[in-house]
Amino acid sequence: MYAGAQISLHPMSADFVSVIMNALGALDPYRERMRIETDDISTHLSGAADELFPAMRDLFAAAAATGEHVVLSATVSRGCPGGAGEPEGPEPAFGMIEPLSANIDACLTAVSAAPVLGQTVAAQFAYYPLGENRHMDGIEACIAFLSRSGVLDRPKNFVTKLRGDAGPVFETLGRSFLCFAPAQAHVAMDVTVSANSPSAR
Amino acid sequence: MYAGAQISLHPMSADFVSVIMNALGALDPYRERMRIETDDISTHLSGAADELFPAMRDLFAAAAATGEHVVLSATVSRGCPGGAGEPEGPEPAFGMIEPLSANIDACLTAVSAAPVLGQTVAAQFAYYPLGENRHMDGIEACIAFLSRSGVLDRPKNFVTKLRGDAGPVFETLGRSFLCFAPAQAHVAMDVTVSANSPSAR
Repeated sequence: MYAGAQISLHPMSADFVSVIMNALGALDPYRERMRIETDDISTHLSGAADELFPAMRDLFAAAAATGEHVVLSATVSRGCPGGAGEPEGPEPAFGMIEPLSANIDACLTAVSAAPVLGQTVAAQFAYYPLGENRHMDGIEACIAFLSRSGVLDRPKNFVTKLRGDAGPVFETLGRSFLCFAPAQAHVAMDVTVSANSPSAR
Repeated sequence: MYAGAQISLHPMSADFVSVIMNALGALDPYRERMRIETDDISTHLSGAADELFPAMRDLFAAAAATGEHVVLSATVSRGCPGGAGEPEGPEPAFGMIEPLSANIDACLTAVSAAPVLGQTVAAQFAYYPLGENRHMDGIEACIAFLSRSGVLDRPKNFVTKLRGDAGPVFETLGRSFLCFAPAQAHVAMDVTVSANSPSAR
């Protein structure tokens, strides 16, 4: 199935070009298996759905390691009908499993096993289940997962805000994207991740 | 009806704090009629749906006028069921009108009447019709509108890219958001607008 993202990296720095160019190097381990194209607005990353969030995490962590205030903004999608003819990842090893309680437990286990990068981030995302089947039970299960993820900050209008170490935060974002709608469902997510912000929490 | 956005402004500059704080002043004329709240990730703007994009345009134009490379990223929503209890704008003076050809003509007229700000921008957006009714005819009409808007750059994976003066570009984004689904429909948009980028087109 086809999954991908349009990712923009915003370093609040006069050196933004070098911060972005150096951070893009963090995608090198993924280049063999993913399609990666950059223009003046965003980098299109597509391939195996379960590599999308690790790739975004590594890209963002590399930029945040400069100590500059950096923000990653991404439009993420899977199962997009418009993706016909796009490179496909291997058959997805994810998707909502039954019972939903087991699904939530599997996601919580993955989050506790996520690498801790020593980089605190704030994130917010909007989740859009598209297509005919609304999967409201999946959304309710995702909310239950988030409430126990350890990185839930608070719900805001239109989005849910997370805060914590980049490792568990990106794992929580990825699991929310992958595991609360069927593997073949059309799902989109709008994600913003921020690090090194001078603003008080 | 309730409409709003979570807006992030990213100046690629060491002076990002003052660029953001000064640009937020451009929202002052809207403060009486809109709810405006800023935290460390975004500014929540809500109120009358037809003022959202003009307010975002003025905010972004003020930041771009510094000459710095600035990007605005926004999660925009209307008719969100989660908006119950939120401040409501006046009854919407917009929404898809029939026949769709007249709808397209009305939007094209609005774009040609949009103020020209003398600031070239690149933008891309994803449009998400939510709720039960998919409005595919509305989406097809929106695509026809975009193709004649004068600011269509190209379709990309997951998003449509625009390029032109900030005035007609924000008007085209706003009309796409407001006019191609019924006034009461739940619609979300993920928008990125960039100015003063050193990257070649």
